[in-house]
Amino acid sequence: MLTVVSDCPIEDAMRILSGRWPTLLVYYLKDGPRRFNELRRDNPSISHRILALELRKLEAAGIVARTDHGTVPPRVDYALTDHGRRLLPVLDALADWLEQRHASAASLAVS
Amino acid sequence: MLTVVSDCPIEDAMRILSGRWPTLLVYYLKDGPRRFNELRRDNPSISHRILALELRKLEAAGIVARTDHGTVPPRVDYALTDHGRRLLPVLDALADWLEQRHASAASLAVS
Repeated sequence: MLTVVSDCPIEDAMRILSGRWPTLLVYYLKDGPRRFNELRRDNPSISHRILALELRKLEAAGIVARTDHGTVPPRVDYALTDHGRRLLPVLDALADWLEQRHASAASLAVS
Repeated sequence: MLTVVSDCPIEDAMRILSGRWPTLLVYYLKDGPRRFNELRRDNPSISHRILALELRKLEAAGIVARTDHGTVPPRVDYALTDHGRRLLPVLDALADWLEQRHASAASLAVS
């Protein structure tokens, strides 16, 4: 469970999402559950340790759910929760905001 | 001018906004220009050096504009650009997303 320290929800949100990986992992999970090794394959530059830490952080924030299927060989996968899924349109808005700037910078360069 | 390294706009946006200060400073500037010392007064836990660095980073990303009025004593202030202003509704959506989670966690605790 996430512990909220400040009174500012933006600050709390940035505490969860700051850094390179949290938002990327949310994106990699948007099409459905992924196993740990699949996430590593999609992100070859992340180490085993950091991926495990980042997934635990997203789990604690209620964004990702971990399912251990209790099978042999073990099968554990990660999926977005409803809360995590509600983050997707916000991240899309953030991407649009940044691309708008590139578009207007490009049109300035042309004119 | 911001140099874009990755192909992912979310990753670029998080590179600009990660950490405690960028989003807070955008919020402090939403009601109009502020002088450097006013921003320090509003954020007593930020050092002079870090505030200067963060403002320069926001300036490089086209989010904040610095105006030197060329007066004696010197008066320099900081304001959101149009691009910075367009970030405000996105940050509001991020805050809403986080508060929704607190609201549903609270209702679960009650039921």
